[in-house]
Amino acid sequence: MKFGTAIGIVISCFGIAMGATMEGTNVAVVMNVPAILIVLVGTLGATIAACGLPAHIKLPKLYMKAIMPPDLDLVGRVNEIVGYAEKARRDGLLALDEAVKEIDDPFTQKGIQLVVDGTDPDLVAAVLDAENEAMRKRHAQGRAPFMQAGGFAPTMGIVGTVFGLVNVMNNLNNPSALGPLIAAAFLATLIGVGSANVIFLPMANRLKELSEQELHFREMTLEGILGIQAGDNPRVVSEKLMAYVSPSERPTEAEQEAAKAAAAKAA
Amino acid sequence: MKFGTAIGIVISCFGIAMGATMEGTNVAVVMNVPAILIVLVGTLGATIAACGLPAHIKLPKLYMKAIMPPDLDLVGRVNEIVGYAEKARRDGLLALDEAVKEIDDPFTQKGIQLVVDGTDPDLVAAVLDAENEAMRKRHAQGRAPFMQAGGFAPTMGIVGTVFGLVNVMNNLNNPSALGPLIAAAFLATLIGVGSANVIFLPMANRLKELSEQELHFREMTLEGILGIQAGDNPRVVSEKLMAYVSPSERPTEAEQEAAKAAAAKAA
Amino acid sequence: MKFGTAIGIVISCFGIAMGATMEGTNVAVVMNVPAILIVLVGTLGATIAACGLPAHIKLPKLYMKAIMPPDLDLVGRVNEIVGYAEKARRDGLLALDEAVKEIDDPFTQKGIQLVVDGTDPDLVAAVLDAENEAMRKRHAQGRAPFMQAGGFAPTMGIVGTVFGLVNVMNNLNNPSALGPLIAAAFLATLIGVGSANVIFLPMANRLKELSEQELHFREMTLEGILGIQAGDNPRVVSEKLMAYVSPSERPTEAEQEAAKAAAAKAA
Amino acid sequence: MKFGTAIGIVISCFGIAMGATMEGTNVAVVMNVPAILIVLVGTLGATIAACGLPAHIKLPKLYMKAIMPPDLDLVGRVNEIVGYAEKARRDGLLALDEAVKEIDDPFTQKGIQLVVDGTDPDLVAAVLDAENEAMRKRHAQGRAPFMQAGGFAPTMGIVGTVFGLVNVMNNLNNPSALGPLIAAAFLATLIGVGSANVIFLPMANRLKELSEQELHFREMTLEGILGIQAGDNPRVVSEKLMAYVSPSERPTEAEQEAAKAAAAKAA
Amino acid sequence: MKFGTAIGIVISCFGIAMGATMEGTNVAVVMNVPAILIVLVGTLGATIAACGLPAHIKLPKLYMKAIMPPDLDLVGRVNEIVGYAEKARRDGLLALDEAVKEIDDPFTQKGIQLVVDGTDPDLVAAVLDAENEAMRKRHAQGRAPFMQAGGFAPTMGIVGTVFGLVNVMNNLNNPSALGPLIAAAFLATLIGVGSANVIFLPMANRLKELSEQELHFREMTLEGILGIQAGDNPRVVSEKLMAYVSPSERPTEAEQEAAKAAAAKAA
Repeated sequence: MKFGTAIGIVISCFGIAMGATMEGTNVAVVMNVPAILIVLVGTLGATIAACGLPAHIKLPKLYMKAIMPPDLDLVGRVNEIVGYAEKARRDGLLALDEAVKEIDDPFTQKGIQLVVDGTDPDLVAAVLDAENEAMRKRHAQGRAPFMQAGGFAPTMGIVGTVFGLVNVMNNLNNPSALGPLIAAAFLATLIGVGSANVIFLPMANRLKELSEQELHFREMTLEGILGIQAGDNPRVVSEKLMAYVSPSERPTEAEQEAAKAAAAKAA
Repeated sequence: MKFGTAIGIVISCFGIAMGATMEGTNVAVVMNVPAILIVLVGTLGATIAACGLPAHIKLPKLYMKAIMPPDLDLVGRVNEIVGYAEKARRDGLLALDEAVKEIDDPFTQKGIQLVVDGTDPDLVAAVLDAENEAMRKRHAQGRAPFMQAGGFAPTMGIVGTVFGLVNVMNNLNNPSALGPLIAAAFLATLIGVGSANVIFLPMANRLKELSEQELHFREMTLEGILGIQAGDNPRVVSEKLMAYVSPSERPTEAEQEAAKAAAAKAA
Repeated sequence: MKFGTAIGIVISCFGIAMGATMEGTNVAVVMNVPAILIVLVGTLGATIAACGLPAHIKLPKLYMKAIMPPDLDLVGRVNEIVGYAEKARRDGLLALDEAVKEIDDPFTQKGIQLVVDGTDPDLVAAVLDAENEAMRKRHAQGRAPFMQAGGFAPTMGIVGTVFGLVNVMNNLNNPSALGPLIAAAFLATLIGVGSANVIFLPMANRLKELSEQELHFREMTLEGILGIQAGDNPRVVSEKLMAYVSPSERPTEAEQEAAKAAAAKAA
Repeated sequence: MKFGTAIGIVISCFGIAMGATMEGTNVAVVMNVPAILIVLVGTLGATIAACGLPAHIKLPKLYMKAIMPPDLDLVGRVNEIVGYAEKARRDGLLALDEAVKEIDDPFTQKGIQLVVDGTDPDLVAAVLDAENEAMRKRHAQGRAPFMQAGGFAPTMGIVGTVFGLVNVMNNLNNPSALGPLIAAAFLATLIGVGSANVIFLPMANRLKELSEQELHFREMTLEGILGIQAGDNPRVVSEKLMAYVSPSERPTEAEQEAAKAAAAKAA
Repeated sequence: MKFGTAIGIVISCFGIAMGATMEGTNVAVVMNVPAILIVLVGTLGATIAACGLPAHIKLPKLYMKAIMPPDLDLVGRVNEIVGYAEKARRDGLLALDEAVKEIDDPFTQKGIQLVVDGTDPDLVAAVLDAENEAMRKRHAQGRAPFMQAGGFAPTMGIVGTVFGLVNVMNNLNNPSALGPLIAAAFLATLIGVGSANVIFLPMANRLKELSEQELHFREMTLEGILGIQAGDNPRVVSEKLMAYVSPSERPTEAEQEAAKAAAAKAA
């Protein structure tokens, strides 16, 4: 289900193209080079001016990320952390030292490392919070060009259409050419409104949502790490972290027992 | 009075259809397949791209929820909690252990269970707050497709209309066909603006309000559970919780006495 | 000066009607039944769907409240509370017990009663804050239909106008009827934009302002009650509460002396 | 530089009038009585309905304030407060008692008076904060009619234009009159959009900015008064308050020495 | 990559001009003096009225700043601060006294000076926070004219276009002149929408982003200064500050070692 963005854009384009074709319009008219130049290059320039060049170099990576988001396995992470909590309770915090190097996720690794180093709990929370806040800002900057493009594209469409109409008005002496000229003028609005609503705005919203999911994931992890450091009972750690999981995704009690057993064995 | 959403949509459609018919328009013209394809399929695709597929699979359930919202009996819940508070004061917190299993509402049950287990009060508040915060996020994600559709539908309507007008402009040599073609182009705007304002936006607002009511309900419950744990006088618990009830729905003193007597008997 | 809302709506309607008449338009054309059906019934349905039926049953009461708002006498309330503060300082908190029953305002009464009962100060603040927060939410829910109608009415006007234009386009073969048909189509926009800007939005804003005034009034009262409980010097209580009163409405020193004397006598 | 608002409005009107004249339009056409009645009287009524009559009686004073704002001399105030701080450190807080009566600014006077009276520091901060919060609310209420008018005027312009177009459509049988009638209809939009953007919105923004400047000025004063009460070193007080002054307006070290010497002499 | 704003504006203008030329429009038509007067002078007047004259005198400097933003070398600053932290740990806080005079950045200098002077840590944080908050406000005021112009320019464009259309309607008796007149009227909208979207809004957004980057830079510096004062281990200071640096810009461990060695030598 993770290819939602690509599927959605395809559905949207399909619906619009299908409807337009049934109305009798040749959909290929949108491949109007002047209109595309005005709207898309105009919008690109405005977003570069608004957000700077570096933010645009990362765009292809962000398109890929929105289309194929990474998996965030909340329940797996809960089990992983409960496993560390059990190990720490059984063998002491220092016992986690060797486990640290095998942790895949850099955020979890950094957190457990700080705990093993005996860093002050407030400082652990401060350092990890700073990481999260910095990630939140980075994500916001990353999706800014999409947000801005969603606002600029329709107005660039208007600029294109008005330019076209100015041209029309200066050619009123040639009535037979008016229809196609006005049609071409309208295409700029079509491209501006269409690209904003089919691509830029859904993309910006999707990236925002993915960012929130990742933050949620990390906040849960942070809560777990602080619980491990405080020496909380693994059952309590599990209870607290499960609140971050949607009820429908929470494992049944039997599943949870099995997972704990597996984690205990693995730890 | 709980079927407000369905009633409202029916009233709105009725008013619009009635007015249009009196004006002499045949309302059936809105069943224009190309316009519907462009606007509704285009909007669906954009919301899928913006919010992901899983959020759309839950939509039918959310439509049902908005149309037939669950009953939230604030006064009943207050009496239930005051009953537990009295039992706890009379027989000690542990006496609630057997009552826990019979509690219908999972949130209340989890809370009372934590209290009976002797969990630290700050931890009880933290776990239940996390549950509420998670529910709030889940609800916000659930209604996001309606919010987004309320924004996308009118602009998809514009896309459809501009496509139609482009078609019109390329057929200016056939004047007799112009009227119906322009009319058909306008239908996309009509469907886009209409569906957003009669269905998507009211739906999104309704779901937001229901979410706030449920949160309010749970905050009251949480306050009551913390009061029970703190060993507050049941009269004080009742006083505090009644502040959550609208004055017009608060029971008179006589009713309250009767309810307390009944609760005491039941407990 | 309290009938501002009614006066404002009358002035606004008068200005518009006068201007339109001078332009040569017959103002009675706005009584166009199809347009009214589409816009006002369509809007009513949408707000019912968005806010639920119960919120609409209270609307007539809210119209009356906006048109004839209750008087909130800040200086009178300050003097009343300073009177209680003096009585409490002179004769002890319990001396307020008999005064409680004669307090008109239920909020003040509840607060002083809690103080007389020896409730913990934090609990007094918590209970009264909860009352205020609940009132704020109730008011926000109450004015929601006006806010929503202010947004829905203009778009329902567009729906009506587009429906009318669709009708026009399908009747292009009868040129002599076009003028009146287009005029009728425009009326829906006129009614939608007009009703939103002359009635719904001003009403919503007015109710919001009245709600803020009442909250301000109650916050001042709460501050005073907490001051009485803390045994503050009545002069200090007066100083603190006067900060809530606009400088231009604050009594001169002479007036204040007289008021204090009167309050002392009355208490 | 303080007459910015008046200068700005004159520049804006000049630019528009000049441009329109060069285009060949007679600018005097905007003095269209019906359009002015609909837009300006309609807007006035709507703002009265939205904000109440009393807020409108203060409008002329607010227009004057926006056009000729009071001078706020940050550096002068810093020096004044540092002077009090030095006096207090040298001769004790009570030595300020005689200086209090000569303070021009009521806010500073009230603050120093509270300090001299030996009021608890938390209470001094609470009373002065309440004054500031009340001023902020008062200012927000004061500029509300401008904000609202900025929103209502363009829509009243649309109402006027649609009314005009309805009139046009009912007079299609008289083609020679159509041009001037349509022109007159457009004037309402022109007046609505123009008045909102040249007068109401800039005015509202200007008043908001002046309010923020005054609040900034008072927050600095409050910080200084609390410093005096805490017995802070005058150098530290000066350091803290200078952070409120824009670097480009901060006095050079030599100027500061001179100012301190003068203040010390004056105190 | 720092010339993003200039590059973006050039790209945007190029795209629009190219597209319009391909459509057959002579791009030079936008140099329409009446339209430029109405839109740009009208907008300038409105922003002066809204934001005051002083804010406009700083505009050329802000244009330059947006086009050539200063370099903010996060990693360099981290190494600088870690260097001070090491010096302070080795030789005591007073050893920083001579280093203070050589610090380029006034903010860092002020902070270290306060630390060397033995100021209370809370006061150090308060003074530097006040500096940052003041800078944030100053930046917000500085970019306000761009934000406002982004809102005013399109509406001034509408004012210009409506004025032009009024002129057109009063000249219906001269059909051959209509086309160019309507075209000229449209130019005002073109200039208004174009200048807002190609210049004012991207500029405002860019300045906002630069302000946030500078604040981020200073917050990191403040955190480091407080760490030095608290006598934190330089390794911990480095760990905390690196959280402010984007992972992709963080030096590898080898680079970090080298930097530390260099800093230690330099200190």
